[in-house]
Amino acid sequence: MRENFDIHEFNITIIGLGLLGGSYAKSLKKLSPKNIWAVDIDEKALKDGEELGVINKGYRDPKEPLLNSDMVIICLYPNLVKKFIKDNKDYFRPNTIITDATGIKNGLIDDINSMLPEDVDFVFGHPMAGREKKGLEYSSAEVFEGANYILTPNSRNKETSLLIVELIVRGMGFRNVVRVDPQKHDEIISFTSQLPHAIAVALINSDNLNVNTGKFIGDSYRELTRIANINAELWSELFIGNKDNLISKIEVFEEKMKLIKQAIIDDDKEALEREFKESSRRRTQL
Amino acid sequence: MRENFDIHEFNITIIGLGLLGGSYAKSLKKLSPKNIWAVDIDEKALKDGEELGVINKGYRDPKEPLLNSDMVIICLYPNLVKKFIKDNKDYFRPNTIITDATGIKNGLIDDINSMLPEDVDFVFGHPMAGREKKGLEYSSAEVFEGANYILTPNSRNKETSLLIVELIVRGMGFRNVVRVDPQKHDEIISFTSQLPHAIAVALINSDNLNVNTGKFIGDSYRELTRIANINAELWSELFIGNKDNLISKIEVFEEKMKLIKQAIIDDDKEALEREFKESSRRRTQL
Repeated sequence: MRENFDIHEFNITIIGLGLLGGSYAKSLKKLSPKNIWAVDIDEKALKDGEELGVINKGYRDPKEPLLNSDMVIICLYPNLVKKFIKDNKDYFRPNTIITDATGIKNGLIDDINSMLPEDVDFVFGHPMAGREKKGLEYSSAEVFEGANYILTPNSRNKETSLLIVELIVRGMGFRNVVRVDPQKHDEIISFTSQLPHAIAVALINSDNLNVNTGKFIGDSYRELTRIANINAELWSELFIGNKDNLISKIEVFEEKMKLIKQAIIDDDKEALEREFKESSRRRTQL
Repeated sequence: MRENFDIHEFNITIIGLGLLGGSYAKSLKKLSPKNIWAVDIDEKALKDGEELGVINKGYRDPKEPLLNSDMVIICLYPNLVKKFIKDNKDYFRPNTIITDATGIKNGLIDDINSMLPEDVDFVFGHPMAGREKKGLEYSSAEVFEGANYILTPNSRNKETSLLIVELIVRGMGFRNVVRVDPQKHDEIISFTSQLPHAIAVALINSDNLNVNTGKFIGDSYRELTRIANINAELWSELFIGNKDNLISKIEVFEEKMKLIKQAIIDDDKEALEREFKESSRRRTQL
């Protein structure tokens, strides 16, 4: 077991120096760890990261930094996380804490845990913040300021590892850190994150007005469609990877839309007002 | 016809000194009209308006200010606009320009025009900005800053009246002022304003997670539900008053949601990516 945790003695390696990895690096800098290293296949991202002082050193080959890291933060697309662990499991040094930022945990945790050496602890996490842009140049420490962070502990995790990850993400700027089991996490996220993205896409794609819509909108349309500008590859993975939860949430949403539609058809002002009062109550409590 | 338009010689009366009327008064002040008067049944709103210097004088009875006004701005709930004109049509002085802020124009314009004296010109307009709160205390000049404004001219309008309203709303802070015929306005607004409100309400009302949802959300859910805190009376009027347009837009949206749902069911990553790329293209162009 790790003793006397001191972030200033920590070597941290970030796997994938894109928008998310870059934002991690910039936020971690505030905590002054001993080293922030990054691994990426994109030579330019690594060079930029070094020149901007975002990382201490970049590597294309993970072996060297992994052999010397206390913490590894995987910021890869969901489908690449397992492969990364499979390819590199022999390079983690004893007591390494690994964490991730993957938006869905189903099918990930057991597979990864079964591959890991016993003295390596993978604490699965999910930062509830991001940007729709891609690449290091759009990364920023502010992305995480005041945001929510979800930990999804599993039976293999040591309490010290969970606490260290919590300490670090709080230091990075996250305000609420909650623990929830992985199955519940995926259900929650299908509602709070994937369903809103599906709605935003469906809304803007249903524009059949044939006008310059931008001249006729207020804040509501602007806000409801911001996330319709979406990373197609990432989100199609997330949607399909969490399909049972997401379909179920879409269907509950569809029922609520039908209810509103029927009330309009019936000129049922009372039914509409009931829905509006309930939604106002829920939004105020949020 | 009015000649030599000079805002500093204009007496302007606002009918209804709530959030919207108060925001009009505060924005109009920047233009230094001769007088800003207000009519309301709420004695307290009038007194507060006078004490805060938002208006020059408040009236419960519209007769006196109307007899002396160059411009009248009606900031009432949609269902009250016609009644106000019917009850007060004899008090408008010649060349008065009336305008409104009503969110739907169908069934309003012809009825009102048929009641008005020939020398009074009603320029129907729609400020695409607002807040979900009620009352003068939440009003502010900033609400309209940079926002869109829609004019819906009809055959009875004089070009000078349309230009004067455009000049004044631009002076109040609106950035884009577009003209569109009233039928098209109602269709556009069902999509850009009413549909987003229906979606936000349906989304938050479909929360069946049984957790403290606020701890598990990012900006996307926060943004998509802000307008779910909604003025129940006003929006049920707007929905039912624009029912044919709104139902049709809800149905197009429902089809797009179904398409996304089916792609998830079919593990059809390509179909999802196609939708995401289209939505991203549209959002970037907005």
